[in-house]
Amino acid sequence: MVRASRTPGDSVHAARQQTGFLALALLLLAALLLPRPALAEDGYDLWLRYRPIPESEAAPYRARIAQLVAPATTPSQQATRDELVRGLGGLLGTPPPLADAAGVEGALIVGTPASSKQIARLGLATKDLGREGYRIRSVEIDGRDATVIAANTDAGAMHGAFHFLRLLQTRQPMASLDIREAPRTQLRMLNHWDNLTRHVERGYAGESIWDWHKLPDYLSPRYTDYARANASIGINATVLNNVNASAQQLTPMYIEKAAALANVFRPYGIRVFLSARFSAPVEIGGLKTADPLDPQVRAWWKAKADDIYKAIPDFGGFLVKANSEGQPGPQDYGRTHADGANMMADAVKPHGGIVIWRAFVYSHETPDDRAKQAYNEFVPLDGKFRGNVMVQVKNGAIDFQPREPFHPLFGAMPKTPLMMEFQITKEYLGFATHLAYLGPMFEETLRADTYARGKGSTVAKVIDGELHRGTLFKSGLTGMAGVANIGSDRNWSGSHFDQANWYVFGRLAWNPELSSRDIAEEWTRMTFSNDAAVVQPIVAMMMGSREAVVDYMTPLGLHHLMGRSHHYGPGPWVEGGPRADWTSVYYHRATKDGIGFDRTTRGSDAVSQYAKPVAAQFDDPAKTPEEFLLWFHHLPWDYTTKSGRTLWDELVVHYSRGVDAVADMRRTWDGLSGKIDPERHAQVATFLSIQQKEAQWWRDASIAYFQTFSQRPLPEGYAPPAHPLDYYESLEFPFAPGNG
Amino acid sequence: MVRASRTPGDSVHAARQQTGFLALALLLLAALLLPRPALAEDGYDLWLRYRPIPESEAAPYRARIAQLVAPATTPSQQATRDELVRGLGGLLGTPPPLADAAGVEGALIVGTPASSKQIARLGLATKDLGREGYRIRSVEIDGRDATVIAANTDAGAMHGAFHFLRLLQTRQPMASLDIREAPRTQLRMLNHWDNLTRHVERGYAGESIWDWHKLPDYLSPRYTDYARANASIGINATVLNNVNASAQQLTPMYIEKAAALANVFRPYGIRVFLSARFSAPVEIGGLKTADPLDPQVRAWWKAKADDIYKAIPDFGGFLVKANSEGQPGPQDYGRTHADGANMMADAVKPHGGIVIWRAFVYSHETPDDRAKQAYNEFVPLDGKFRGNVMVQVKNGAIDFQPREPFHPLFGAMPKTPLMMEFQITKEYLGFATHLAYLGPMFEETLRADTYARGKGSTVAKVIDGELHRGTLFKSGLTGMAGVANIGSDRNWSGSHFDQANWYVFGRLAWNPELSSRDIAEEWTRMTFSNDAAVVQPIVAMMMGSREAVVDYMTPLGLHHLMGRSHHYGPGPWVEGGPRADWTSVYYHRATKDGIGFDRTTRGSDAVSQYAKPVAAQFDDPAKTPEEFLLWFHHLPWDYTTKSGRTLWDELVVHYSRGVDAVADMRRTWDGLSGKIDPERHAQVATFLSIQQKEAQWWRDASIAYFQTFSQRPLPEGYAPPAHPLDYYESLEFPFAPGNG
Repeated sequence: MVRASRTPGDSVHAARQQTGFLALALLLLAALLLPRPALAEDGYDLWLRYRPIPESEAAPYRARIAQLVAPATTPSQQATRDELVRGLGGLLGTPPPLADAAGVEGALIVGTPASSKQIARLGLATKDLGREGYRIRSVEIDGRDATVIAANTDAGAMHGAFHFLRLLQTRQPMASLDIREAPRTQLRMLNHWDNLTRHVERGYAGESIWDWHKLPDYLSPRYTDYARANASIGINATVLNNVNASAQQLTPMYIEKAAALANVFRPYGIRVFLSARFSAPVEIGGLKTADPLDPQVRAWWKAKADDIYKAIPDFGGFLVKANSEGQPGPQDYGRTHADGANMMADAVKPHGGIVIWRAFVYSHETPDDRAKQAYNEFVPLDGKFRGNVMVQVKNGAIDFQPREPFHPLFGAMPKTPLMMEFQITKEYLGFATHLAYLGPMFEETLRADTYARGKGSTVAKVIDGELHRGTLFKSGLTGMAGVANIGSDRNWSGSHFDQANWYVFGRLAWNPELSSRDIAEEWTRMTFSNDAAVVQPIVAMMMGSREAVVDYMTPLGLHHLMGRSHHYGPGPWVEGGPRADWTSVYYHRATKDGIGFDRTTRGSDAVSQYAKPVAAQFDDPAKTPEEFLLWFHHLPWDYTTKSGRTLWDELVVHYSRGVDAVADMRRTWDGLSGKIDPERHAQVATFLSIQQKEAQWWRDASIAYFQTFSQRPLPEGYAPPAHPLDYYESLEFPFAPGNG
Repeated sequence: MVRASRTPGDSVHAARQQTGFLALALLLLAALLLPRPALAEDGYDLWLRYRPIPESEAAPYRARIAQLVAPATTPSQQATRDELVRGLGGLLGTPPPLADAAGVEGALIVGTPASSKQIARLGLATKDLGREGYRIRSVEIDGRDATVIAANTDAGAMHGAFHFLRLLQTRQPMASLDIREAPRTQLRMLNHWDNLTRHVERGYAGESIWDWHKLPDYLSPRYTDYARANASIGINATVLNNVNASAQQLTPMYIEKAAALANVFRPYGIRVFLSARFSAPVEIGGLKTADPLDPQVRAWWKAKADDIYKAIPDFGGFLVKANSEGQPGPQDYGRTHADGANMMADAVKPHGGIVIWRAFVYSHETPDDRAKQAYNEFVPLDGKFRGNVMVQVKNGAIDFQPREPFHPLFGAMPKTPLMMEFQITKEYLGFATHLAYLGPMFEETLRADTYARGKGSTVAKVIDGELHRGTLFKSGLTGMAGVANIGSDRNWSGSHFDQANWYVFGRLAWNPELSSRDIAEEWTRMTFSNDAAVVQPIVAMMMGSREAVVDYMTPLGLHHLMGRSHHYGPGPWVEGGPRADWTSVYYHRATKDGIGFDRTTRGSDAVSQYAKPVAAQFDDPAKTPEEFLLWFHHLPWDYTTKSGRTLWDELVVHYSRGVDAVADMRRTWDGLSGKIDPERHAQVATFLSIQQKEAQWWRDASIAYFQTFSQRPLPEGYAPPAHPLDYYESLEFPFAPGNG
């Protein structure tokens, strides 16, 4: 652009002056291209930062993106074009010129055979891409190099466009692209546990992003950015409200508000679902009962569904938590979960809607082993649900602990589509301030082998329908849900690193067999830097971070040891209260003789809910992977672990290792000073210092408590807890965030 | 900077090229100076936007600010320098070079005689500036023009620096400055009604900006920006927590958190206060009583104050709401408000602290007229409070209504320092979405004449101590408190225009005799534009906006007609419930015979709480200003108003006028499209559309309701309500924000 075409006729003086102007111009240009100081890196942009590619690397991208052909005859196409203009404009300095058809070397064409004649003429096979897949291919059009992003639908083209931008954001080569992607699951869904008061249950990122009071009139620009972020990782569904639902959500006023959000999300291929309170016919319908077999109740739900679909024609359906933790449900009327789900499924069926019924249930009576309940209640119902019902199962049988073995329902309901429920918000992994990348945790569950149809029957294959496709499981519905970690905080997720958990959830929902490490690297490049000296240490931190939390909170298969109600900090001493299975002592069962929950055939026999090879493994402490040891076994304090250490010593080693790992993360992060923008660096650094303090607290409190049972000294070289046990027991946190 | 010094030796070719470079350089320069697109105008910067002064106007400012001399040997001096560098850098393109002493033409020197020898040598009289005042003067130093910002303290210098920046922001001339400013009140204070849960009582801007859970470790950059904004308008004190206080605020954990905030605020001259729950000695102290005469209780508060001052050496003191709306207080033990206040005052006295005792009290028994209660309880206590006690009085006797006559306590307690309590958050004026500039409302109260010491005894003179200075009122304490409208919303106040209410509060607290119109103009220039075509219409909108709210909500002296509890929308039909004085019917007293609350000598006799000339005026409907007519009088529907219309017709005219005024505001705002950045323009436009809808709702619901009493037709040309009364009565808003 600024090129001096000097001629011999120039005087020396002019040349000098000219050089001065050139220098000035370059200086100003450089100033323009420098990261702008006012662009504070506050995290709002998420992984869609689109910061300029350094000049030294930009040329190959500019050459391949010399023109943009992106029809915009529908809102979705317009959104795709806007994103490309914004993204390429940011990455390349200026957006490529728009054209109606490829006409220069290096055109980028995005669309469908219907929207673009040039794409149609290329005759790329797109059948297998389905409704949401896409291809990105380097092609020749009229003898010129071009790149096409082709799909069957606008939604597919949008996904392809985001993928294409990601290639630039992560500095992938552009020369000979041949990418073919289609999602492995149909529903990739966020569950917002957001109340109409804007309180978010288990939310650690401020209050709900839904400003219900100002809806439907005021549509915050944030709603669009939420849709962009989700579309960029393939999320195509969202449940706006808490599973502990208010019936008010189904009143006309709130349906109208939900419809306004649905209108914002629609161009981004995202459908709205609502959590439905089972007793709504009584609470807002004026009926005397919510019995699912009562004709009036059935009629009420039909009419309610009709009303909702009038306002939201592409409404997804209902998510229901029933007969669980005090929520109303069909069992209140002596009916089954299938009776309840099927009634609601019948109401939405004419409109193409579905019902997602949660399997996280437990009855009013404290059970011998809560881990067994969902299986016991749901397996007998396999095959009894309507074709438009899915059952949503948490990754593990207790409740989103830092580590749980996979839920025994996976593989055990071949006639029922099971939807995975992961928790993205870190209720049990340190809230917003602990750095814990959940990718490895999600991956661990997805790769777990259920043996339901022999070796290789992974949870991922249950979730994406492959395991039972064409055999028993008919509906073809598949999906994955994540309990959102999104709130009103400027950085969306409460901490910069928690954005990665939103990201990895979306990517794994799209393809449950992706590698969490690859995703971490992808996210790091987009979020922080492509500098290898940044990427490598950050990815290493992330990949080790969840194991660190397991170590300092719940090592060796321990679980459910947190503070009562708010779940903040250690509470292994929690006992009493309304239900034994809401205490810690119910789960760790520590005595002078040993520790752990005996779920073997000699104990609660939860192991027998797994397929035989799995059950046999978990039934034997010697064969049980050590990370699940105390989940399945009650063992004496002097039990010899794989390291040769006693169980007690091994516990102390794990607790301490967790704290040390956080110290390591701090060192790593400190070493990145100057390579990360100061604003984000400072916040992460402070959060890591909080994490270290709290990791130490978890370790010390846990050791102090369990030592009262083990009555053994700490292994040599391991420092005793900083305070006596009663200090830890005395701490109270009445205002810890996110309480239910 | 970019100046072509061509010589005859240049070749034409070179000259052409040179011109090309020059053009390019200028283009790039212009690009640099243009409002940057990425700098979304989301309102976060408040009135401290510091956007570049157009090149055509910048020269005189650059000439007068060629060098910055700002010593930075204390945190406060550093903050002042940082602000000048940031502000001048933004306004002038680049910040002036820093120097240790003025050494060029056009230096700007800021400091105190102690921090700057040059300021000391100038010998400017600064005695009368007190601890917080300043002078800004054009001077000559060593034969060169300079500008000095001189003060006795760092705090004063900081106030002067913000004033100086305001001069640039509002494009004032710089040539011969001679400004002398000192605050008219000592305490200019925000009251945050923020709970430890982060819920803000009567908050309409998200949740509390205090992220208590992450304090004291994580100090959000927002805390510093909060301090900057307050310091810029002279606010020097903040009460962090709700007057409906949790005793937990006084536990060591929360004192430590408050101390962390105090550390952030200290360099900005802002002191932290806490609301104290009177029963804290019982709730967190383990005592059996909170009786203020009990020695153990007194000792507990002494010890508590000692602990707080250990953590916060410049702690301001306690704000107390006692025996009001169910809060505990000294009357629970048969003691007086003075007994309670004095006990706490004794506890903080050794540390220089004060106690601010709220006069907003009413007993458990429903009174004949709640408007009379504060006066009745407090006037007998005049002279009985310790010297470090202030009594905080709301502007009116009911509760922050859109219009109230001034509180009869003003002028009636000559021996007691009365602190004004305004409500900045718009609990009763349309929450965040209604545009209502409160400047005229504050001004109306401040300029009201109490006649306490004859004509001219304005409320402002009560507040700033002038009225009773040197006569009866000894302590010299003066102050003004505003219930904050600040929350976690990106734009701080929920709407862009609500920022003006924070601003005008601060400016009037500094000088209660400023003009609300001048302040509106100042704010508009800093917040939106200096373009007269923008300033004039916005100021006009702002100045008429509060009267519009009065018209469509509570015309002619009506009051307390809003929805129950949440106070959202009209509720003139509200009756029943726990207390008559929490209903609407208690206040409007509409019957078939007429409407209004008779507070004359023939009625509740509230008028006699005012000084004689005022009482005489309010006692006679013919002399009562019409805006207070139904506040003081119960009048027949056919009472003839000043316009010649019947009271009923006049009411309808006012309601309708209010709606029309909002329509006018919308038109005005639409006309500013293109002159305001799109992001803020769009949000304000949407909010105005909500306001118009809700203004119509208020009008229609009110008319429908009162018509059942008046049984009169609407005046000709006035449309009937859109719905029947039962429709309005049926509306429910269980999740309206800000509920207590």
